[in-house]
Amino acid sequence: MTVGNERAMGTAVLAEVRRRRPLIHCITNYVTAGDVANLLLAAGASPVMAEGLREVEDIAAVSQGLVLNLGTLKEQTVDAMLLAGTRTAALGHPVVLDPVGAGSIAFRRETAWKILGQVPCALIRGNASEIRALAELAGDETASLVHRRGGGVDADGRDAVTEENESRTLALMQALSRRMKAAVLMTGQADLLVDGDRACRIENGTPMLGRITGSGCMMDGFLAACLAGSGVGADRFSVLAWGAAAFGVCGELAEERCRETGGGTGSFRMYLMDAMSCLTDSQAARRARIRELDPIGAGKRG
Amino acid sequence: MTVGNERAMGTAVLAEVRRRRPLIHCITNYVTAGDVANLLLAAGASPVMAEGLREVEDIAAVSQGLVLNLGTLKEQTVDAMLLAGTRTAALGHPVVLDPVGAGSIAFRRETAWKILGQVPCALIRGNASEIRALAELAGDETASLVHRRGGGVDADGRDAVTEENESRTLALMQALSRRMKAAVLMTGQADLLVDGDRACRIENGTPMLGRITGSGCMMDGFLAACLAGSGVGADRFSVLAWGAAAFGVCGELAEERCRETGGGTGSFRMYLMDAMSCLTDSQAARRARIRELDPIGAGKRG
Amino acid sequence: MTVGNERAMGTAVLAEVRRRRPLIHCITNYVTAGDVANLLLAAGASPVMAEGLREVEDIAAVSQGLVLNLGTLKEQTVDAMLLAGTRTAALGHPVVLDPVGAGSIAFRRETAWKILGQVPCALIRGNASEIRALAELAGDETASLVHRRGGGVDADGRDAVTEENESRTLALMQALSRRMKAAVLMTGQADLLVDGDRACRIENGTPMLGRITGSGCMMDGFLAACLAGSGVGADRFSVLAWGAAAFGVCGELAEERCRETGGGTGSFRMYLMDAMSCLTDSQAARRARIRELDPIGAGKRG
Repeated sequence: MTVGNERAMGTAVLAEVRRRRPLIHCITNYVTAGDVANLLLAAGASPVMAEGLREVEDIAAVSQGLVLNLGTLKEQTVDAMLLAGTRTAALGHPVVLDPVGAGSIAFRRETAWKILGQVPCALIRGNASEIRALAELAGDETASLVHRRGGGVDADGRDAVTEENESRTLALMQALSRRMKAAVLMTGQADLLVDGDRACRIENGTPMLGRITGSGCMMDGFLAACLAGSGVGADRFSVLAWGAAAFGVCGELAEERCRETGGGTGSFRMYLMDAMSCLTDSQAARRARIRELDPIGAGKRG
Repeated sequence: MTVGNERAMGTAVLAEVRRRRPLIHCITNYVTAGDVANLLLAAGASPVMAEGLREVEDIAAVSQGLVLNLGTLKEQTVDAMLLAGTRTAALGHPVVLDPVGAGSIAFRRETAWKILGQVPCALIRGNASEIRALAELAGDETASLVHRRGGGVDADGRDAVTEENESRTLALMQALSRRMKAAVLMTGQADLLVDGDRACRIENGTPMLGRITGSGCMMDGFLAACLAGSGVGADRFSVLAWGAAAFGVCGELAEERCRETGGGTGSFRMYLMDAMSCLTDSQAARRARIRELDPIGAGKRG
Repeated sequence: MTVGNERAMGTAVLAEVRRRRPLIHCITNYVTAGDVANLLLAAGASPVMAEGLREVEDIAAVSQGLVLNLGTLKEQTVDAMLLAGTRTAALGHPVVLDPVGAGSIAFRRETAWKILGQVPCALIRGNASEIRALAELAGDETASLVHRRGGGVDADGRDAVTEENESRTLALMQALSRRMKAAVLMTGQADLLVDGDRACRIENGTPMLGRITGSGCMMDGFLAACLAGSGVGADRFSVLAWGAAAFGVCGELAEERCRETGGGTGSFRMYLMDAMSCLTDSQAARRARIRELDPIGAGKRG
């Protein structure tokens, strides 16, 4: 994929979200639920947050996509996630799984694994520690359910992707992607996306995104909306690459506004929402930095 | 009611909220709870969010008003709502019910109907789909508890009020209002308010209010504060008409600020809070656009 | 303690938080959880919100501090608080208790008392009504578990600290502090801090902090981060006095920005976050107004 192709493809995605206004069902944490809802509205989609056992299937039936986010997970929410996920996938609609904290918290890792065993997901999105934890499980299921390493819900520094380990990281991600038939997006300083045989590095974004809560959760919602808006025939890998880049572009635009106004992280959070609500496909395409990679060799193809 | 009368009446409402600082108990969704609390503080009221079964009656006992909002409803919260609602109403304090999602989700519609059967509400506020769903139940209780139509928590386009169906809509609302002895407010492009024999259309607001989450929830809280601040002898219909207009005026002021600064939906959300915290009764009265209607004939009276 | 000493001490605190980036585990209310997470990130710490019974101990094991905040308390959360609190304290890490609503709600007061009986806390922070309620319990455990007085989660005006009752208030706080071996911080127009034999009045802040929700909750998180960042050998009293002053300084800076831009409470909330994310130790030290007091006599020492 070249930036040129991407630009042509990207022209459709955001416009389609705004035209179809997909209803995105989110079973997510209470810390950032409001931010996710506002981001979805800013993107032109429609959010519905619901986790009551008596209603999640009804809501799945009228939605066009689902986000399962494990932040602030409670025992009783797991059943709601499985019910909603199964129903959404059966309808052919995309399910996005965010295994928040799966890198360091056994209960989160077990729950993510349980969901992946029962719900066909379109995308697994997490930070380096979360994706590595699941990828290791995909390679050797018996070994890794024990406590892994610290870091709470942020990535552990030792898990960061470097020039040296990128190739091995992509191979791990590919194994997870193939086994789950899901795209896998590892976000960090740069984002890595693998979907079966295809892989790319997305170099948009800013470290400021890590200085507010909910960046990842908002991205989950946005990517679910991009998939739902693009419909059944779309090229999943390209839509996700474009979506990750577009979200990163919003971060860049917000950071620029912060610099102009002397704002801190509070201003950044507001400008991020502003950027998404004003973003156009062509603006995103102009700034998208997507580099296609060989998932095994990790070199540039073109 | 003319704008002139409204202006005179309106002068008191916000000033009274700020003087009495009513404590508004909210049993509400976790998506927008923070926004509702901040909006209540901006208006000069005091919020308390609480749904623990062991405390809701205690809190109802010291509060001056209650909001029951069905967003992110869970089974166990229904009992808390019934306990708090019964206690609040018994004290003669206003209960505001927001049947979020009752248009498309059976569990929400059943719960709203259960609450209305046990708790005397002062106001039912919802979008076109939600109010229609309850109004149809009020007309024929056996027929409409089945799944109704899609749309999640947003109004379905087919439910929108038009010039053609406004008259029939008002008649439906009136039937609900009379049966429940509650005012009924249907918010949308314009807001319709019916309370027994009286009805009006409020033409304040902006479509931007639909592009952030929580506009409706914040309005619920504000209207509960207006009712609580106005006290027992007040004219409920006039207070609510003024409150709905004043909230819409805040939306208009926020939109104007957005246009000046080139802001998007993130900025709008902040300016909405700014507008409420700086609003005066006379500013609201100057911009209020309230047209009294005949609830049956739907024509202008004056 | 003089301002000069404070300045020297303060130089370290924020820099240490940013260097060590402590992971702060929060079991808190859903109304302000996002604000607390964003404030912790703005300060340079890392937040993790989690209350699932199956994970709180795991999370406590990898965290450097814990906030227990009783807002929107539910029955099942109490056990999670006790588990996490016991584990955190056993590791020698600071536990901050915020007894939200303990002034007016029996269940909150009972829960706060239960936690204090089982979990060694480093800090109890609350408004005048909340701290008085617990201090009275510390003096006479049998008498005060009955309903005390109204006011929801805000301080009751009758509990305000005045020149006349400051001496008695400090004595009450000192009894609570000694019995619980915890520092006690009562926030209000001025903040009072007592830790065993030491006491001070902190005169930073602005009434605007009372016009947004979550000021207290954000302060809880910040103070936990200050304690965790300062490490085991630090002077707890000095760290907390500096932390309370620094938080108040952020409020002052935010209020100044509001005045410049004509903003209301929405802008204030954003500028508060901006101020924390840009604050330096020396900026805080320059503006800190900390007056050491005799906890019994309530006069100035120096």
